[in-house]
Amino acid sequence: MSPNLALNQEVAERRAAGEDIVHLGFGESRLPAFGPLVESLVAGAKRNAYGPVQGDAAVREAVAGYFTRRRMPTGPDQVVVGPGSKPLLMALNLVLPGDVVIPRPAWNTYAPQAALAGRRAVGVPIPAGAGGVPDPDELCRVIGAERRAGRDPRTVVLTLPDNPTGSLAPPALVREICEIAEREDLTVVSDEIYRDVVHDPATPFLSPCEVIPHRTVVTSGLSKSLALGGWRIGVARFPGDGPGRMLRDQVLSVASEMWSTLAGPMQEVAAYAFAEPPELRGHLAASARLHGSVARAVHAVLIGAGAVCRPPAGGFYVYPDFEPLRPVLAAKGVVDSPTLARRLLDHGGLAVLAGHLLGDDAGALRFKAATSMLYGDTPVLQWQALHSDTPLALPHVAAGIRRIEEGIGRLVS
Amino acid sequence: MSPNLALNQEVAERRAAGEDIVHLGFGESRLPAFGPLVESLVAGAKRNAYGPVQGDAAVREAVAGYFTRRRMPTGPDQVVVGPGSKPLLMALNLVLPGDVVIPRPAWNTYAPQAALAGRRAVGVPIPAGAGGVPDPDELCRVIGAERRAGRDPRTVVLTLPDNPTGSLAPPALVREICEIAEREDLTVVSDEIYRDVVHDPATPFLSPCEVIPHRTVVTSGLSKSLALGGWRIGVARFPGDGPGRMLRDQVLSVASEMWSTLAGPMQEVAAYAFAEPPELRGHLAASARLHGSVARAVHAVLIGAGAVCRPPAGGFYVYPDFEPLRPVLAAKGVVDSPTLARRLLDHGGLAVLAGHLLGDDAGALRFKAATSMLYGDTPVLQWQALHSDTPLALPHVAAGIRRIEEGIGRLVS
Repeated sequence: MSPNLALNQEVAERRAAGEDIVHLGFGESRLPAFGPLVESLVAGAKRNAYGPVQGDAAVREAVAGYFTRRRMPTGPDQVVVGPGSKPLLMALNLVLPGDVVIPRPAWNTYAPQAALAGRRAVGVPIPAGAGGVPDPDELCRVIGAERRAGRDPRTVVLTLPDNPTGSLAPPALVREICEIAEREDLTVVSDEIYRDVVHDPATPFLSPCEVIPHRTVVTSGLSKSLALGGWRIGVARFPGDGPGRMLRDQVLSVASEMWSTLAGPMQEVAAYAFAEPPELRGHLAASARLHGSVARAVHAVLIGAGAVCRPPAGGFYVYPDFEPLRPVLAAKGVVDSPTLARRLLDHGGLAVLAGHLLGDDAGALRFKAATSMLYGDTPVLQWQALHSDTPLALPHVAAGIRRIEEGIGRLVS
Repeated sequence: MSPNLALNQEVAERRAAGEDIVHLGFGESRLPAFGPLVESLVAGAKRNAYGPVQGDAAVREAVAGYFTRRRMPTGPDQVVVGPGSKPLLMALNLVLPGDVVIPRPAWNTYAPQAALAGRRAVGVPIPAGAGGVPDPDELCRVIGAERRAGRDPRTVVLTLPDNPTGSLAPPALVREICEIAEREDLTVVSDEIYRDVVHDPATPFLSPCEVIPHRTVVTSGLSKSLALGGWRIGVARFPGDGPGRMLRDQVLSVASEMWSTLAGPMQEVAAYAFAEPPELRGHLAASARLHGSVARAVHAVLIGAGAVCRPPAGGFYVYPDFEPLRPVLAAKGVVDSPTLARRLLDHGGLAVLAGHLLGDDAGALRFKAATSMLYGDTPVLQWQALHSDTPLALPHVAAGIRRIEEGIGRLVS
């Protein structure tokens, strides 16, 4: 099973058995659904007929507007709507030719999907500055080595902003990758599902789709920015040229055999959300602010404890490296990422996702912590956190951060 | 694209351009959603968090009861819930070993799914009596030939009742297939999504799961019996023994990478529907009655025109064979199933799905007609049809049947 979902279930079982665990191991924005989204779902509740495979025309129109407002001019025909970006990414794996290059570490689903589709996945380390993209020099080196070995890397996956590191590749780095993609004839799959969770609206964001639109497929969805993981709404944007249309048609063919259509009531939600009316923009901004505040607070705890960690820029993750503390940890039997995560769960009460589960070197002392589970266990507490100017001062949020401080403190002391 | 969905879109476009077409080419129960189902969806509207990959415990409990009431004793652990039975069948294709045997003709998604999963699909003709199962003698012969050729048939798919023929394999035939499966070590995938659309409650139904439960996976869903194709709710039942649990875990692993979870609001619907409260049973019975009345009326038209056709027993399809009229049709340039379907669309105003699109011999003069699109174009007309003791006497239903009579008449005259 997908390791994040497996950990999620282990935590649920241990909590049910009475353990007190701070759950930092599941990439879910733990916020209630925004009221008008629920109203849209209810408005669509009678839509029981099969919808179009590609998605309602009205939904695709809204999604086209969404991308166009983000400097990616898009027509409705370039859009495919599906039950989450996960199946859309799976469909891309089934139709794109050749091997796929993924950053290392990366979201834990890219590699297994490639394997299910019979594709070879090659991990390339991320640069020190930001995750979600392979290090450009390493990328060139690996592609050369692969080709010399008779293999055929043809796709590179980017995650902007990144899961698991919570960082965002700066425009210059994205441009470098685009140049390599152009030179080496790679298709770029740009997973931008965390795009609307960039913490500071002033942070520059460059999509490869702005640089090399003819060879970029962008995927996104509502699971992260709007905390709708349980509603399963995803989208993909294809190039508008002939090869782009052909790729889109291949994905539609897979979609028609694999999932048929996005559920009708969810199409109503998607039409509302991707149109981004003012009240929704306000909600998105408040969510991004909260994600940023809490991620930065956890980042400070980790740095304070002696870890190295990229500062969070988007999403709701931090990805610390405890290498500077290796001697201290070794004395406790913590020598790699499996023992590190196990120790934190059993002795620190913290559930985190070990780095090797994300494709990272198992010998490294790294893990992913999702900070979005700290907003409270009830909708009321979550709304308080969302609408507070000082969420870190709220007792329940402060208590969660203190628990992390204690758990990490117990690890490194 | 899946040919039924493609035809669906062609019909929509031609209608939008002003053509008057009777749409018999799409396997959808064109009925409104039953009120309490809509209420369940609304009750679950705030469930925005990711649910368990396997499905809510409450949903699995309800589904276990559903199967148990049908002589298949089932525990909640044996159940996996997903966004339609289509992705569940795809997951099975990704994890089951060897080649897959499918009836010929069969639902148009089995073969493409096998191909996507890199599996070889082998079609075996159905017997004269009923579709949804391979002819037993042919099945033995094909398995022998395949094995001698060094290939490895390991799965057989059954459809009970059948899509596309609308017939139901009688218990003796199912038993024969089970004996072969046992002897030849085949896993049976029994697609029982039309089970609650058996027209006459007295019709004997035997699932292979009752005979060889240890080697049968049953799939089902709410798309057909409850007209919820657009809500995407499917289930799978696995054997309860060790190998069954292993297979279930492999499917869960694929599920976690391919679709994560059934949407939260839909879990609420599934918990209600699979519990089958009395009012829902009444609705199911009325639906099955209507499906039967209309399918029998269309069957009578086809027989009257000189076609051969299995009498409909479940679902909402008929699958006529115009072989007896080959000379008449040949004079009009209709010599195979592509020209037959094209002629009916262009000169008869009838959209049907040509047999070759379902794996059948393209030279045969066969097609599938879905009779469930005749209940009316508005919810009001559909409810009238559903609650009428004599739906065939309703003007709009009668007009549809007359249009079929005319279209077929024009073909064979």
